[in-house]
Amino acid sequence: MDADSYRPTSMSPEEAAEHDAVFGALTRSVRELVEAQLLTEVDHDVARGVTAEVEALTARLRKQASDGPLGIEVGDDGRTRAHGNAVIGLRNPVAPPLHVERSPDGKAWSSFRLGPQYEGPPGLVHGGVSALLLDQLCGEAAAAGGAPGMTGRLTLTYRRPTPLGDLSAEAWIDHVEGWKTTVRGCIKDADGNPTVEAEGLFILPRWARELMEKQGEERPDRFE
Amino acid sequence: MDADSYRPTSMSPEEAAEHDAVFGALTRSVRELVEAQLLTEVDHDVARGVTAEVEALTARLRKQASDGPLGIEVGDDGRTRAHGNAVIGLRNPVAPPLHVERSPDGKAWSSFRLGPQYEGPPGLVHGGVSALLLDQLCGEAAAAGGAPGMTGRLTLTYRRPTPLGDLSAEAWIDHVEGWKTTVRGCIKDADGNPTVEAEGLFILPRWARELMEKQGEERPDRFE
Repeated sequence: MDADSYRPTSMSPEEAAEHDAVFGALTRSVRELVEAQLLTEVDHDVARGVTAEVEALTARLRKQASDGPLGIEVGDDGRTRAHGNAVIGLRNPVAPPLHVERSPDGKAWSSFRLGPQYEGPPGLVHGGVSALLLDQLCGEAAAAGGAPGMTGRLTLTYRRPTPLGDLSAEAWIDHVEGWKTTVRGCIKDADGNPTVEAEGLFILPRWARELMEKQGEERPDRFE
Repeated sequence: MDADSYRPTSMSPEEAAEHDAVFGALTRSVRELVEAQLLTEVDHDVARGVTAEVEALTARLRKQASDGPLGIEVGDDGRTRAHGNAVIGLRNPVAPPLHVERSPDGKAWSSFRLGPQYEGPPGLVHGGVSALLLDQLCGEAAAAGGAPGMTGRLTLTYRRPTPLGDLSAEAWIDHVEGWKTTVRGCIKDADGNPTVEAEGLFILPRWARELMEKQGEERPDRFE
């Protein structure tokens, strides 16, 4: 990964909006299919029939397709579109997705629902899924505060079980030292009790620092 | 969560095998659809048509369905079926899934491929996805060594970027103190270089300890 990994988008804002509406709806439909097929108890013949139809739809979508991962696009306004991201990606059915709000004082927060596809212990969110969401949220807090980086270290402390269902999470910059940003965060259950706490160290990679020195730039806001 | 969270399966081994074949194939087809819809560049009309068909399939699967998460089933032989698990679940399209091998000396390992739905930074595995997989693998190492538990703390150290594609991971018990098991693990890239290291503390929950004292049982092997 380097500076070229962030591709400029070729779409106008209007084109991007329509594209996102169409493919966002497609992704939402696949997310619902993911949950439905996990919980279904239909007869085997019905399951076999649906399998064949899903395979046919996959073939239709593959007729015209990118061969690589989606990466991150950067618009003319500097805003990023991380549609493939495993946590926030509009086009990624693996992502819940989290809609993350951010403030320039280095805070990020989100409310969301985790369905049965995020289960670990019976009825509970997988401990690793909590780690996944907190990594993203802590990284966004660092970026929101103007001190972005790639994850260098992440420590999760599990205080109590996290039930599937409605949850929230928040993260905030604890302190910044040079290219290293320390962020804290937590997931809260529906009653507002913290269930998992995180402390993350985010480090701006060397290629980004060198690019900035060369161009006399501010810190880039591109590590989401 | 308590001892009752683990449901005995109502299926014979033969019924379970056929069930897994049919619904495993359905899940595989949905996993491929997830990847195809993420990368597709079909015309908007085609995308809208596929969306409608996916919605119809979801409705068919929902006609007969469980209303809760899958939980974990326990067979007559004591083996668990965690088909909904977000990392190893046979029936969970969010899971890659990892096929984890284990040995009774407290080791667990797996080789797997991560597609574009696990992306974070461009072309790279999301740091939180690495955390997700290592949480599962470390927990399995603890269980394999007869010292299972729920995750109490997990620390990830990111040594170098993890590229999407073919990867492997391993975990092993470092030491056991009473009800607390410390496990180490790592993810390796296709060249065998460690990219992310983990240290996890797994703790046997009180309800399990009390159940064991009451029944004079060995440690249960049910924290996968």
